[in-house]
Amino acid sequence: MPTNVEFFFEFASTYSYPAAMRIDAVAAASGVTVRWRPFLLGPIFKAQGWETSPFNLYPDKGRYMWRDIARVCTALDLPFRRPDAFPQNGLMAARVALAGLGESWGKDFVRAVYGAQFVEGRSIADQGVIADLLARLGVTPEPVFAQAHSDAVKARLRAETEEAQRLGIFGAPSFVVGRELFWGNDRLEQAVAWARQSHAA
Amino acid sequence: MPTNVEFFFEFASTYSYPAAMRIDAVAAASGVTVRWRPFLLGPIFKAQGWETSPFNLYPDKGRYMWRDIARVCTALDLPFRRPDAFPQNGLMAARVALAGLGESWGKDFVRAVYGAQFVEGRSIADQGVIADLLARLGVTPEPVFAQAHSDAVKARLRAETEEAQRLGIFGAPSFVVGRELFWGNDRLEQAVAWARQSHAA
Repeated sequence: MPTNVEFFFEFASTYSYPAAMRIDAVAAASGVTVRWRPFLLGPIFKAQGWETSPFNLYPDKGRYMWRDIARVCTALDLPFRRPDAFPQNGLMAARVALAGLGESWGKDFVRAVYGAQFVEGRSIADQGVIADLLARLGVTPEPVFAQAHSDAVKARLRAETEEAQRLGIFGAPSFVVGRELFWGNDRLEQAVAWARQSHAA
Repeated sequence: MPTNVEFFFEFASTYSYPAAMRIDAVAAASGVTVRWRPFLLGPIFKAQGWETSPFNLYPDKGRYMWRDIARVCTALDLPFRRPDAFPQNGLMAARVALAGLGESWGKDFVRAVYGAQFVEGRSIADQGVIADLLARLGVTPEPVFAQAHSDAVKARLRAETEEAQRLGIFGAPSFVVGRELFWGNDRLEQAVAWARQSHAA
């Protein structure tokens, strides 16, 4: 059985954006496969008593993050623009992503959502925006929304979030390799290297 | 005027340990100089409503940190052992460091304190331990303690901590290059590269 990197991402998470843009290339270069797993940080934050992002709760940390993510994206040659609203509600986008990740367009959709939010400054909580992103990918939105709003997909997203919590995940992006947890875009290479070594062992 | 990296470290901080062990070598390889600046995170945490380390307040984050710092140290070929008590009170050690960083033994003392805490499992709040570390470096402890306990050094440590807060520092280690702040051992290379480029510009 090949060793995967389980890639847990949250659409509202700034650092999940560069991770999503580069993880497949980084993993492919090491012969490692990736399983993309959208989840929600909101319930996890709530369980620690936070009603919003720690970047809003702790202003110094927030100021730093916005500068840091801009530098990180510059270094990776990724466009980045700070959106007006943060954090955005990524619930619908996450449900659509869950519905799509079994299809050929799933990862492109995830990357498009991050681009809409962190490059184009659009509201990813707006169903019209999500419909537009799907249409751009040549996907007819209506049946996707029907699936995304189904009880099955809603339950799967809840289960993924509970699984993340069970795995000790407290932020995004997070990478799980076997029993090892790696947190943050800057741990991506380490997670992939761990997967490669585990597979070789 | 050469561009420095201002290296803000806190003795209780786990990630400050690998940073202290390697910063001079990383900086020297880029022709960058470093100013070592001990400060206290306690007052900064208190200002955000935290009475102890966030690694204790948020257990998932804490569990992750202990695993992550062990992996980080392994990758850097640094010994590491989780101490029984965390966080330790580094007030006295920070005062001694401030007194010593103008002397030839200052940086060796800082590294020795981290080794005592994160390798040897000793209590750095214990004046006997600090005296022993000084003696190992060939430094007579008594006059150093007299200086460390002086009003001048106490006031300087308070001023350094206030300066850190003014610079937007919220964790350790932090690196300041001009007006740029970098947080975390994993931002060390980026901070040094920033200093090198600023100097060349």
